[in-house]
This record gives sequence, C-alpha cells and structure tokens, in this order.
Amino acid sequence: MITYMDKCQVTFWPIGKVVEVIKGTNLMEAARKAGVFLDAPCGGKGHCGKCRVMIKSGQHKHEYTPLLSEEEIQHGYRLACLTWIQQDMTVELTEVDVVNDIMVENITSDSSRKFVNRTVDILKSSGIKVGTNFKIVPVKLPKPTIDDNIPDLERVQRELKTILGCENINWPIEILRKLPVVLRNFDYEITLGLLKTESGYNIINVTGGKRASIYGLCVDVGTTTVAACLVDIDTGEIKSSASSGNLQMQYGGDIINRIIYSTRENGLEKLNQAIIEGTINQLVREMIKKLAITEDDIILSVFAGNTTMAHLLLGVIPENIRLEPYIPAFNNAPVLKAGDIALNINKNAPVFLLPNVASYVGGDIVAGVLASGLWNSDETALFIDLGTNGEIVLGNRDWMLTCACSAGPAFEGGEISCGMRAATGAIHEVRIDRQNLRPIVKVIGTSKPKGICGSGIIDLIAEMFLKGIIDMKGKINQNIKSDRIRYNHHLGCFEYVVAFGNETIDGLDITLNEIDIDNFLRAKGAVYSGMRTLLNNIGMSVADIDKVIIAGGIGQNLDITNSITIGLLPDIPQEKFEFIGNSSLTGAYACLISDEAREKAKEIADSMTYIELSADPTYMEEFISACFLPHTDTNLFPSLKKAMNL
Amino acid sequence: MITYMDKCQVTFWPIGKVVEVIKGTNLMEAARKAGVFLDAPCGGKGHCGKCRVMIKSGQHKHEYTPLLSEEEIQHGYRLACLTWIQQDMTVELTEVDVVNDIMVENITSDSSRKFVNRTVDILKSSGIKVGTNFKIVPVKLPKPTIDDNIPDLERVQRELKTILGCENINWPIEILRKLPVVLRNFDYEITLGLLKTESGYNIINVTGGKRASIYGLCVDVGTTTVAACLVDIDTGEIKSSASSGNLQMQYGGDIINRIIYSTRENGLEKLNQAIIEGTINQLVREMIKKLAITEDDIILSVFAGNTTMAHLLLGVIPENIRLEPYIPAFNNAPVLKAGDIALNINKNAPVFLLPNVASYVGGDIVAGVLASGLWNSDETALFIDLGTNGEIVLGNRDWMLTCACSAGPAFEGGEISCGMRAATGAIHEVRIDRQNLRPIVKVIGTSKPKGICGSGIIDLIAEMFLKGIIDMKGKINQNIKSDRIRYNHHLGCFEYVVAFGNETIDGLDITLNEIDIDNFLRAKGAVYSGMRTLLNNIGMSVADIDKVIIAGGIGQNLDITNSITIGLLPDIPQEKFEFIGNSSLTGAYACLISDEAREKAKEIADSMTYIELSADPTYMEEFISACFLPHTDTNLFPSLKKAMNL
Repeated sequence: MITYMDKCQVTFWPIGKVVEVIKGTNLMEAARKAGVFLDAPCGGKGHCGKCRVMIKSGQHKHEYTPLLSEEEIQHGYRLACLTWIQQDMTVELTEVDVVNDIMVENITSDSSRKFVNRTVDILKSSGIKVGTNFKIVPVKLPKPTIDDNIPDLERVQRELKTILGCENINWPIEILRKLPVVLRNFDYEITLGLLKTESGYNIINVTGGKRASIYGLCVDVGTTTVAACLVDIDTGEIKSSASSGNLQMQYGGDIINRIIYSTRENGLEKLNQAIIEGTINQLVREMIKKLAITEDDIILSVFAGNTTMAHLLLGVIPENIRLEPYIPAFNNAPVLKAGDIALNINKNAPVFLLPNVASYVGGDIVAGVLASGLWNSDETALFIDLGTNGEIVLGNRDWMLTCACSAGPAFEGGEISCGMRAATGAIHEVRIDRQNLRPIVKVIGTSKPKGICGSGIIDLIAEMFLKGIIDMKGKINQNIKSDRIRYNHHLGCFEYVVAFGNETIDGLDITLNEIDIDNFLRAKGAVYSGMRTLLNNIGMSVADIDKVIIAGGIGQNLDITNSITIGLLPDIPQEKFEFIGNSSLTGAYACLISDEAREKAKEIADSMTYIELSADPTYMEEFISACFLPHTDTNLFPSLKKAMNL
Repeated sequence: MITYMDKCQVTFWPIGKVVEVIKGTNLMEAARKAGVFLDAPCGGKGHCGKCRVMIKSGQHKHEYTPLLSEEEIQHGYRLACLTWIQQDMTVELTEVDVVNDIMVENITSDSSRKFVNRTVDILKSSGIKVGTNFKIVPVKLPKPTIDDNIPDLERVQRELKTILGCENINWPIEILRKLPVVLRNFDYEITLGLLKTESGYNIINVTGGKRASIYGLCVDVGTTTVAACLVDIDTGEIKSSASSGNLQMQYGGDIINRIIYSTRENGLEKLNQAIIEGTINQLVREMIKKLAITEDDIILSVFAGNTTMAHLLLGVIPENIRLEPYIPAFNNAPVLKAGDIALNINKNAPVFLLPNVASYVGGDIVAGVLASGLWNSDETALFIDLGTNGEIVLGNRDWMLTCACSAGPAFEGGEISCGMRAATGAIHEVRIDRQNLRPIVKVIGTSKPKGICGSGIIDLIAEMFLKGIIDMKGKINQNIKSDRIRYNHHLGCFEYVVAFGNETIDGLDITLNEIDIDNFLRAKGAVYSGMRTLLNNIGMSVADIDKVIIAGGIGQNLDITNSITIGLLPDIPQEKFEFIGNSSLTGAYACLISDEAREKAKEIADSMTYIELSADPTYMEEFISACFLPHTDTNLFPSLKKAMNL
C-alpha cells in the first residue's frame, strides 16, 4: 500500500533557499533541512521567540504565543518553531536571522603579529618554551631497480632510519595509501610531517616535493559563538581566522538545554554533528579555501570549550553533568585523532582538548587562566568570563579558586526579548538623554538595529537606573510621561522602547521590559555573588583584589563604569580592570604553538580548587542581595553611593 | 530537463532475488546489484565463460562468444557479462553459480582441539611461547558522591593505577563514549579488555559486569577462497570457523586481473569493499551470530594472504607489483586498527598482517612456513602451496629460498573450460576405465557434477596419459574410437567428455579439451621448473629433498602418484610427502594466540631469499622442459619411467 503524502515547497528569502517537505512539517525543521539555521536558544519550544520569521505567502497552522503581538501576527510574523506548513510557502528572513553566518577574517600581518607576540610574551615570561614536537623531513630516495627492489614503505623507512636514527615509526593507513602514488608522481622526492612521540615518530602527512607547510587549528568552542584560527606551526604565525554562531543553537541556547536535548533520540548525534560538521568543519573549509591549502596540511588541533561543549565535541553524553552529584564523563580527554571525531583536517592530526576542572568550569576557563598569566602572578587577580555562563577564577601563583555562576545566556543576549549575540545589527552601546529619555545607540555593522547584545543591555540598564527610569529592583517608574515608556499588555508589565519599528531592520520595536530586566539582574547577581563567595572562602574582600581580568566576547564593548553601576563588577578603581578578549582562543593558540603550554594547562586545571556554589552555605544569601541595583548592601559600591547619593 | 529512462526488473531464480535496473544495463552488473555474485575469473571480459546463466524470459542483447555452442544459445544459455537487459527478465542460476556461499562450520570440540593442539605443539617444539599481551581486568568502582565527584574516566583511571601500577593508559573514543552508560547500567562494575604496549596499556573493550570474553579473528585471504576462525584468546580454542569464495572473483580470477582492475576508476575501492565488506565482514557476521557475541568482543585480528591480497585488504594500490621492477607498496604492513579498514570487529582491535617477502611471495607463504616448522628443522624441505598461484619454499633452519611460479589459477579450476573451485558439484577424483575409457568420478557434496576442480583435473590428465588418451604433449589420440572423444568445432581442437549433459547439474557436458590440457601443463610446468630452479640455485637435486610439504586447498584431495605422473611433483618416495592443509590459516592462528609467533613470522620473512624466476638464466629452459608429460627428461621420473616403460 502506498500512502500518499502532500509535499510542499518552502522558499526562504532573501537568501533564496528552497526545500521540499511533507505537509504538516514544522517550519523550523524545514528551515534546518534547507540549511537555514534559525536561532533557538530555548531549543524550539516556543519560549524564547528568537526564531521569528515573516510569512509572505502560503497557508500554515500556528500556535498562539504571547511573544508575538496581534499586530505582529497581522503583519505575518510567526515563530518558526510554532508554525506548521500546509501549502507551498514563501518565508522572509532578515539577513541577520541566520545563526551560521561565517566571518572569515583576512588576517593582516600586523594584527596577527600583535596577537602572536602577546601570547608568546606571556609564555616566555612564564618560562614556557615555544615549540612543538612536529618535524618536517624532506626525503630523497634512490629509485627502485630490479637489484634494489624493496617496497615503497621499507624504502622510506630505510632512509628515515638514517635521517632520524630511529626505526620505530608509526605509519597510518592514509599515508600508506598515498605513498605509492606520491613517490612516483614526484620522482621519489617527498616531504614527511612527523610527530615525535615517547617511543619514536608518527607520520602525519606526506607531500610530494621538497617543501611542505604544516598548519595547526585552534578553536574556542563557545556555547554561542565559535572562533577558530589556522596557524603556521613552524613560525607560529596566524594565517587565517574565522568565527560563526555555534550551530547547536538551534537545539538550545544554553548548556542545560543542550544537555536535555542530548538525551533525546539521536540528540547527542545531532549536537555532535552540529558542532563538528555544521560549525567547525565549515570554518575550516572557508579558511583552507582562502589559504589554498588542503585539509591534510592541518596536522594538529587544540580545542577550548566548557565541559559540556567538550563532551558534545567528542560525542560523549553530557547527561550526568546536570544530575546530582554532577559527574562529567571526563576532565582530561584522551589525546585523540581528528579522524576519531570526523574533523575535517588531517585524519591523523592529534586532537588536544584543554582539560576541564569540573562539570561547570571547563577547558575554556583553563585556557583563559593560562593566557592571562594569573597562575604565575604575585598579584591576586579575579578572572571573569562573561560568556553564555559566567565562570570566575580568583587567585595567584600560590592558589586558585574557581566557581561557575548559573548566569544563563543573558550576557550573550539570551533570555532577553530583544537580546541577540554581538553580531551585525546588535545595539552594543547605549546612552539615555536625561531630558527627553531618548536613547542614543551604537549598532554593530549596520545603521539600523535588530536587537541588543550583552554590552548594550548593561549600558541600557545602567542608564535607565541612573536616569531614574528604573529603581533598585529594576521596576520601571510608572509616573514618567514618555512615549518610550509603555505598558505591554501581552506580558503584563512595563517596557522601555529602545527603537521604534521605523528605525529597525525588520520594522519591529526593540524594547526592554521588566521581565528582561529581572532576568538580567539574576544573571549579573549570579556573577557578583559567585565572586563574593570565592572571596569569602579565602577570607578576602573586594579591596584585596589587585586586578580584574575580563574575558569573553562581551569584554571589548563592556563599559566598566556601567558594569559597576548595575552591580556586575566590584567597585574598585578603573585601572585595575583589564580586558583580554577571547582568552579561551588565546589559550588554545598557546597550546598549539607550545607542547609545554599543553602540559602547563593540565597543571593549571589540577591546581584549581572548585567551589560548588550550590553547596556553599553563604551563597544563596549573597545571590539574593546581588539581584538588586547595584546591591542591597550599597556600602559595597562606595563610588556609586557617593555619585548617586544613595 | 528530465531524461526519461526505462527501468527493467530482473528476477534471479531459484534464489528469488529481484533488482530494478535501467534498460541497457549489463546482466553481470544487474546481478551484482541484486547481491548475486557470479564467478568471473576474467573480470567480466567474456573470456572465461564462468558467468554462464540461463535466460528464462525477457528480451536482451547478447554478444557472440565461441564459449557457447549454438545449441546452448538455443537453450537460453548466455554469458552474463556479454548480455544487456532490454526488458523485464527472469534468469535462472544453478545453485552453485554464486561465488559467495558462506559455509559456517560448527566446530566440534574434538576437531577444534586437534587443530589447536597441532599448532600449539609446533609453536612449543620451536620454543615459541603461546600467549598474548591482552589482559581482562574486572574493575569495581566506588560510586560517585558530591565529595568524591571526579569524572567517570578519571574514576576508572584511579582504580586502574592501583590494579596495573601504571598510569599511561590509552583511551579510544569509542570506550570513552560507552563508559558513562556502562558504568551506570552495571552499577559501577565493569570489565576492561586491555592490550599491554611498550609504554602502557591500550583499552580495547569495556563491558558491564564481572566477566568478559575476548575473541580473536584469523583469516586466510585466498585469491579464490577466504577462510576465517574466531578464537577464544584466553584458551586458544577455536569457537567457530567459516569460509566462502572471495567476492573479488567477480572482478577477476587471478591476481594479475585483480591488479589490472584496481587501476580502473573506483577499481581499488570496489576490490577493497569486496574483500572487507563483501567477504570477511559477512563471514564475521555469520560467526558472531552463531556464537551470540558482539563485534566489540573481537579484539585482535590476524590476516595471511598473498602480497596483492594484502594490498587490496588495506586499500593500497597494488599496481606496481606487476610493473617492472615489481615493487609492492609494503612488505611489513604497519599494525593498524580494525576501524582503519572498516573491518566489522572492535574498531580498536589491532590488525596484524603476516609480512610479505616480495611481490609474488606473500604473508600466506610466511604463515605456511611458520606453521610447517620448516624454518626450525634440520631436514631440507620443499614447501609447495598450490593455490591460485604456486609458491615454493626450499630450505631448513639455516637457509630458505623462495620463488613464485606464474601457475595461474589452474589448480583452483581457473582457465580450464569446465574447471571450478573445490566446492559443491566439483569432480575431485577421477579414474578412467582402461577398457571403455569411461571415467569413474567422485563429486563434492552432490551426486551430479557441475565441473572439475584442481585435484580432479590432475587425476584426469594423469589417467588420460596413463590410458593412452593423450601423449606427452597433451594431445589427444585422434585414432581412438570412443563417444568420449570428439572434435570441438567451436574451439578447433579435440576434447574428452568427462560427463554428458544428462549426468550433470545444469544439463551441459563436462569436457576437458586440448586447450585446457595445454593451460594445465603450463601451470604444472611452472611449479616443477620453479622447484628445479631453486634446487639449481643451491646446487641440490631432487634426491636431496628430505620432505615435501603440500599446502593449499588442493592438498587434501591431491593424489601424489598422479601428481608425479603428470610431472607436477618430484618423483621421490611417497612417505616423504606431507599434506598440511590450509597452512596459511594455521599460521595466522598461531600469530593470533602467540605474540612471539608474530615476531617469528617477521624473522622468517626477513630470512627468506627471494629468487626472481624471470631473472634466472636457467628458468626458461627448465619451464619449457617441464611443460610435457611428465617432462622432456624422463630420467627425472624414474619410477614413472619404469612403470610406463617410457
């Protein structure tokens, strides 16, 4: 019996992708099938409203959601995850809807050199030698004759024994398969890429001719954004870098949603494919295309990510990370080969993951601490990573405490109605005019905004607080008369309009409502109280902090004063703050160019003491106090207290 | 634009397989697609006539071939490789047409014990220790708590450090992926299969609970037939064995045709898939089904095959083996993992190939020499493997010479019009009545024959010679009046009818014609002259041979007297001959149960001196003399000379 199924064609504009699906298919699913990856921090449950699209034509069913106003629905706006296809459809996306827009940077030698020099300086000043065990060995062989008719492999082996003084050489199958062809195509003159091991050498690559380049790949696997560099292993020079959204975002915005998704049928597989094939391999493809090299030329890789990302990268179930007693499958991943995880570089390239410290403090933090030099400093520093979660390290060369704050994705725009990551169209700076309460904004990449990213939200809340629009609890002053302040009947709360529809990319108002503010206060409260708990544990106060190191994507745009104003950062002098950018990537880069740095990273992870906040008796009280603007204890913010006369 | 293509359905009887193909598809191709693998020693070029089928219905185009008589064509017989489908068709196969009929043997403990004991005796008497570096380690772990919350991997590692006193443990990705699940499903009680290495341990397998079995796979990869055993690594007991045709046969009957096919587009890939997925994985599946174990339980594998088979097994191009100066890609294959070659056992199981000696003397011969004990004997022995090619080793504990005879596939029924391998339906023994010149035959497995296998052809030619049907040149005596002797107009030569159509499986006459005899004389001449050349090289004569060891599938059925009569084997006393059966498999088995045997195999391969016959000045003359019955120099066959009064 043949079941007849209606097929519908869905066209996505303006990118022009078309897909055929069975009638009744969910629009989010159809988009995925078309290779259009819509943002879905909530995992497609209709909670976050990030997968909003505009239907131009075509019948469909849709479920009611308070996240869309009646007006928006009339204009054709829908949440893709709550829409089911009934007919051929045309769907319009704004150009910034799609997660996976890869940005490949043309590294100018200047900016590259600066990055390289800084990292090399940090390594050297800490006594860590730069250099790896990779070796490029050109080999010229005598051609075989009937009297010297030993096989290809034994012929190379004979030569290598003379060159290396070592017989224990490990030949992977791929090299053996290539060898007969390369030898004959290049007149018995080849170049081998070798990795020295404890007991001998592993051959990683073979190329014809006298010269070969060997590249390394370092990747910061962020929950939201993934950044990668290709590095010349010989010189340490960064040859190309690229970043994009983490394609796993379609399955959930934060690690908890990802872990939940991983336990669904084929969930782990999908998440693993989304990060490896969907994200990292795409970045690699773009970069090797630009450099005109082959994937086989990339012979080493280093990854830094949080513990959950590390599990998903290797295809290991992260389920037990969120179940008491919170047990990861591993902290120190075994050294694997790229082929083990279907990574699109040389199959035999070693894969090194920065080690995790605990379930919620991962290799990205270890990389950051390595890159910051904190572990080797006399000064007591506070290291804060404001990524999708917030992780904190407090310490110096003698001791290090660390904890994870359940800040959620707010600093990357998650769980905020008009929030977005720091990409094209994001408002990243805000000032509010004291007179007319109008905002003055700066937008990334375009003149018109689409949403607000983390640094913009911090500015906005600080300004709203300083200009009296909101109180210490984050509630909007209802007595203010302004077209910017209005009641949202859908949500049943007040909101502030940052941009009206006629000023925005997709014609929709950009607002910050009281629920958003509440979410954000809990996020910043989690970070501040985490820091306080670490200080309490070692019997220190905010004044004892010599330096605050701010890492994470949010860093560069972060306004310190505003961050202190909202009670995210401790109220200490400005000059004690330092931004170190994507220190997870920097740490991964360090481990790529230095074998000793990899060893050091393991030592660092081992020497960090993890404080489980939920098990700390003082934490909950600290957290509740920190969910105010700036804090219930205004004595902790003396400069603000003075300025605002609190 | 849509191109409309007619589709035709082809049904294969009596197995009932159906396949849909595009009109114009070759019938051989269609059969392959249906999973019906027809014998095709010539590689589907229409030269060998082995892919004969009967068309029951359906229009088709076919090319003329002298291999089918007009009568046969009228009866619907076609060569599949010369037939193109025009319509829906029904094709009838005899039950023995198909290459890939797997035979799984239920190993009785008696026969198994005999095989095991013999091999163990040989190893022990040569001072080779039985035993491997595999270790089964049961581990019971303390369950994680909030105070003892180290990750799964580190928890096992901590325990292993105590048990093994070693920290250097290599975790493959598959084990890491399984670990969290197995630990929790089996209440933190697991059993690990470990391989001790120079620097530590490799984990190969993890199972839940207290016990685990570890199996090893040994395979004789013959050009024509593949035989495999599953062995309990702990006890050395053979648990199951299986054999089938080598599915590569569809791409060519001998190694030269396979090598040629490997250079075609996707040829190497197809040959590799035919042996791995098409043949060996099928055998493994059948055996593990019978034993009710999983593929992960098979944690070691050993393969013995000729040099070309070794290349095709690893997917390495064998092209240069047949091009002067005859260079293999490797003799000593690196130790690989099963996952490298898509072998359907534990992905991390080491794969060990018996080393090759040269382009035409492979690991199967090294395995045979190992198993025979020749390398450790005071007696000078002649080792002859009569497989698809003929390889010879002459020597003792002090020296070994070896050569390859280009005998072709004649001993396995190839290049003989009614020849077939020693499978169901093969005539394997023949006597001819001196009075009426009628043959008395024995058939394998059934009462009716389909063709003649190697041992049958030897008997037949010897009997024809002894009974005066053929002369020393192999020409049929045209003066004999008998319905068994007739002229073949197609081929333009005389032939002897072994069985008339009414006595055979497919109703066709089984005959041996002068061209067949000529082919066979060249094959036996190649072996005899090869042996003579080795003797000449060391200044010895036939009389100096203390023992003749006959290996290969043909062995068990071989009649020594008849083999001497036709001049295949040297004319020395019967008691000096010994059959050792499939010594390639025995040698592989030895290497499975003994690490030291693997080392010894390498030593044996290194110590064998390869004589390139084509470069030997005396060889061609020897060969020509040996292409007669029994030889131009009848003094070499004194017993025969006396008996026949030559």
